[in-house]
Amino acid sequence: MSENAFLRARRPEHKRQRREAILSAARELALRSGVREVSLGGVAAAVGMAKSNLARYFATREEIYLELSAREWQDWKHAVLARLPPSPTPDAVVDALTDTLAERPLFCDLLSHSATSLEHNVTVDAARAYKVCVLDVIGTLTEAIARTRPGFTEGEARELVAAATGLAALVYPASNPPPALAELYAREPDLAAACVPFQPTVKRLLSALAAGLPALR
Amino acid sequence: MSENAFLRARRPEHKRQRREAILSAARELALRSGVREVSLGGVAAAVGMAKSNLARYFATREEIYLELSAREWQDWKHAVLARLPPSPTPDAVVDALTDTLAERPLFCDLLSHSATSLEHNVTVDAARAYKVCVLDVIGTLTEAIARTRPGFTEGEARELVAAATGLAALVYPASNPPPALAELYAREPDLAAACVPFQPTVKRLLSALAAGLPALR
Repeated sequence: MSENAFLRARRPEHKRQRREAILSAARELALRSGVREVSLGGVAAAVGMAKSNLARYFATREEIYLELSAREWQDWKHAVLARLPPSPTPDAVVDALTDTLAERPLFCDLLSHSATSLEHNVTVDAARAYKVCVLDVIGTLTEAIARTRPGFTEGEARELVAAATGLAALVYPASNPPPALAELYAREPDLAAACVPFQPTVKRLLSALAAGLPALR
Repeated sequence: MSENAFLRARRPEHKRQRREAILSAARELALRSGVREVSLGGVAAAVGMAKSNLARYFATREEIYLELSAREWQDWKHAVLARLPPSPTPDAVVDALTDTLAERPLFCDLLSHSATSLEHNVTVDAARAYKVCVLDVIGTLTEAIARTRPGFTEGEARELVAAATGLAALVYPASNPPPALAELYAREPDLAAACVPFQPTVKRLLSALAAGLPALR
């Protein structure tokens, strides 16, 4: 094999490794300082690439985080499937959905930014890949829950799965306030009522939906 | 009165007018293109000020929008109070909360950015003023609803009011997709399932919570 052929053959694998290194650096940075604080330049610096070179892999920081979000959705799907008992009560369905979200702060952080930020500033293809993944996960979990006959219709099961991720997106930033708010809450405990604990809040609201949706039939 | 005294006396009023002009320009820009798309430089250009001059009134775009958010909370409070019947059914409470939100797209857009964006990058004082306003509105509406004895405890009424604004924050961006997603939904109707209509979605979820919260007692 000539050296040129070797280089050509190596290239797709090399590109794949670079992509993974970028995603891994972006993941570490987000875990450390929150998705909001990470810039494309920050990711480039962490992975040791020039920003112009990184742009050949991802055009925007939103594309990086949308791809990480898609992976987190798949990871969450497997976790819920593993956690669902064969014949769950409605409470057990709520627990499986909530506890697996509470164990995934990066997923919750990404969810909280997806509709207002990550889905902007990306190509139609990137947005499509993400939406296809989200609908696949919601569809798979809906079927799995409906199959266990926990007292929900398939439509209600779908609403519960979507609501679980929606509530995670909503509650996560409130329960993880930025420095200025954290300082304020420490100084004025009366205002800290706005800072709700993640897992109990999501579980209570999802339990109320699980009880209330069938009542609307 | 000397000219100097006149200028001094005029100054606070003049500053107030400038602040209002900035807030009004930021409001118009957000209504036209969405809160996410407006920069501090864009507001300065719209109001005809140098960015360095505008910085004497607001240090960041987040401070401008957090102040507009506080005003929108107050405006929404008055609208809900005017809409609540004297002895509402639970459905009428849900209607009063939901319909007034659906009539306020700017408020919903601001809500969708508050915890993930607007509460960052502001001073502790600005964050405090906003939180005090939010807790005042939630407290006033909670009392007003609890007073009508609609079948909720005061705690449940508080959860419903907070959930109404939370659901608005969550559903608004999903029902108002950015250009790339709008293009995708038009091309592939199967994916448009992710684009839910605002008012029916908020109303259904809030109705489920109104039915489900008392069931958890």
